[in-house]
Amino acid sequence: MLGRTYESQNCSAARALELVGERWSLLIFRDALFRGYTRFSEFERGLGIAPNILAARLQRFVAAGLMDLGQGSEGLELPRYVLSDKGRDLAPVIVALTTWGDRWAASGGSPVLFGHDDCRGEARPQIVCAVCGRRITPAELTARPGPGATEPG
Amino acid sequence: MLGRTYESQNCSAARALELVGERWSLLIFRDALFRGYTRFSEFERGLGIAPNILAARLQRFVAAGLMDLGQGSEGLELPRYVLSDKGRDLAPVIVALTTWGDRWAASGGSPVLFGHDDCRGEARPQIVCAVCGRRITPAELTARPGPGATEPG
Repeated sequence: MLGRTYESQNCSAARALELVGERWSLLIFRDALFRGYTRFSEFERGLGIAPNILAARLQRFVAAGLMDLGQGSEGLELPRYVLSDKGRDLAPVIVALTTWGDRWAASGGSPVLFGHDDCRGEARPQIVCAVCGRRITPAELTARPGPGATEPG
Repeated sequence: MLGRTYESQNCSAARALELVGERWSLLIFRDALFRGYTRFSEFERGLGIAPNILAARLQRFVAAGLMDLGQGSEGLELPRYVLSDKGRDLAPVIVALTTWGDRWAASGGSPVLFGHDDCRGEARPQIVCAVCGRRITPAELTARPGPGATEPG
């Protein structure tokens, strides 16, 4: 199965992509997070995604704890797919992707602006240093082995 | 081609995924950014990726302006794949993905720590408000139509 999985990669980005890297996955979370979708039919209509693919994705997200299955009050309605904390925590990934796309792939301007609920200010993803508190630019960013590393850096 | 492309999505996250959402793509940028890889053989060995897939990805990145083709000083060496500004700017996406994976999918602790070059402090992705300057939590984050929106939000 060479090239089909990221199993050999001891890397949290690879593990994240294993869970949410398939086509449509992050857009499903985008719509759950920012459009409030919870119904199969909402995702299907909003994305124009084939029902069999959508069903496979949602089933996988529930199995992986990214979404919880909710029921209508009578137990008779169709199930709802409700973001868990684990799923909701993908928001920074989606904002970072959107910001990159706005800058490099949106010739007509940002289709969507992320904002601060409180003051309506624009939301900007930044990488901040936990020690000096300053913003870190990509050029100042380094990677080193952490406590979960199994091989030298 | 229903379900095969994101063309119908007027969304910068979708456009970003169209360019870098394929399997292995973000891990190639991870290794270019944080391991300094530029050679085909480095990516191939580091990722354990099939050569035909790697070749297709690198070719696509050069065509999309994410990498530039560099040559050795004699012009006889194998080409180098050098990140452009557009490619380098994917760093926040990779840090956001890694942070999510560290929190939710790395039982053995973070394999890699991102740090500030200057003071060695740990790097943390945050979403910051451009108006009030405070950190925005996912629950405080809203989306609204931007200047490039073609349909009402």
